Amino acid sequence: MPNPTAAMLTIGDEILSGRTEDANMPHLARALAAAGIDLRETRVVADVAAEIIAAVDALRSRYDHVFTSGGIGPTHDDITADAIAAAFGVGIDVREDARAILATNYANPERDLNPARLRMARVPDGALLIDNPVSKAPGFTLGNVHVMAGVPAVFHAMVAGLVPRLVGGKPLLSASVRAMLPEGVLAGPLGALAAAHPAVAIGCYPFNRDGRYGANLVLRSAHPEALAAAEAGLAAMLVEVETSAV
Amino acid sequence: MPNPTAAMLTIGDEILSGRTEDANMPHLARALAAAGIDLRETRVVADVAAEIIAAVDALRSRYDHVFTSGGIGPTHDDITADAIAAAFGVGIDVREDARAILATNYANPERDLNPARLRMARVPDGALLIDNPVSKAPGFTLGNVHVMAGVPAVFHAMVAGLVPRLVGGKPLLSASVRAMLPEGVLAGPLGALAAAHPAVAIGCYPFNRDGRYGANLVLRSAHPEALAAAEAGLAAMLVEVETSAV
Repeated sequence: MPNPTAAMLTIGDEILSGRTEDANMPHLARALAAAGIDLRETRVVADVAAEIIAAVDALRSRYDHVFTSGGIGPTHDDITADAIAAAFGVGIDVREDARAILATNYANPERDLNPARLRMARVPDGALLIDNPVSKAPGFTLGNVHVMAGVPAVFHAMVAGLVPRLVGGKPLLSASVRAMLPEGVLAGPLGALAAAHPAVAIGCYPFNRDGRYGANLVLRSAHPEALAAAEAGLAAMLVEVETSAV
Repeated sequence: MPNPTAAMLTIGDEILSGRTEDANMPHLARALAAAGIDLRETRVVADVAAEIIAAVDALRSRYDHVFTSGGIGPTHDDITADAIAAAFGVGIDVREDARAILATNYANPERDLNPARLRMARVPDGALLIDNPVSKAPGFTLGNVHVMAGVPAVFHAMVAGLVPRLVGGKPLLSASVRAMLPEGVLAGPLGALAAAHPAVAIGCYPFNRDGRYGANLVLRSAHPEALAAAEAGLAAMLVEVETSAV
């Protein structure tokens, strides 16, 4: 059975402005690779309802899972929950279980659970809550869309609780070798190696360090035996290329 | 006149696997913000021709510019140039001017410009070359799509040459203030501030440091006077909130 597929959608004026880098994306990518869920695509869109709705709709119909990051706090620019409800065509309102969870975060909920904070208890109809052990305000899963916070500590905690509960597949395994040879010399034999190992994705990531050309060669596969065979093939190839390059 | 719009497409199994973070995205985001070109969306897709073609087609019809990163080297997994040609329905072949530029990189082009390296001189019909002062192999612009290398040093050099030549608009200006108050206390007055300053996007990015809640408040606008007015409004608001919170 093939691995489940996934996409990530980051809601992020802050990311698009270049002021902040998206730390949540590589974190989720690593968690999904370990769980055997294939991350196929990621997008970042602006804090604009129509953009979020369009992206969620495009992604949720194509992939088994969609993970979102950002836009579920108490401020005016936190519009993700409403956009998700609109994408699914369901209602959204303050939900009592979410309000009760949120209330545990405040010394005096009557006073402190102001209208802005109560926005964080608004949950689309039919959603399941995602636990937030850091700051209480829950995320939620609606259909195949998992809606999580943008604050990295909270996002990481939500991923840690959520991803192990999803049905995964074969973890994506990888092996990498650094070759101090120019990519243009490696390219021919590497293409032959890739053709001989169709179950392994072979990537070549060149660099130049202190004037010398090299490349990180990365092998990726969900099949341990196929990966081992490609690794052996790569090692033999590198000996041959290095010998002929002398 | 509104600023031109842009999207970025990263071609990247390496990014999707979580092994490497996309350093090119924040770099381009900052360069575009400075040039007054509004980055509206970014995507990362796998090294799969159909995915690249679909994403390029979706983005080039929506935005004034599309910038791509990755997949234009000499190896078997470098399929971006062919995918761009397919998206535009034009031919692609080794072009003499690109080959001549590439040849300057090698001591003995007759010997060193092997078939793999010659792939880097394949350019879709009708494209303009993008200069690569680092390692010669050019990028190219076809229509409104700018195709650049994934290696950060090369991507940065290509952006530095390309972006100043594009017609820009008003630079995106920003100001930020760190408030040591919980987001839930700031949210109400911040919403009122945002409503009073429609030409300024106001973002609130909470954090928790040593057990204390705070938030970075970021104002963004292409209009210096509007930004200054919102900054003054924010300063007054913070005094008021801090006073009433005591």
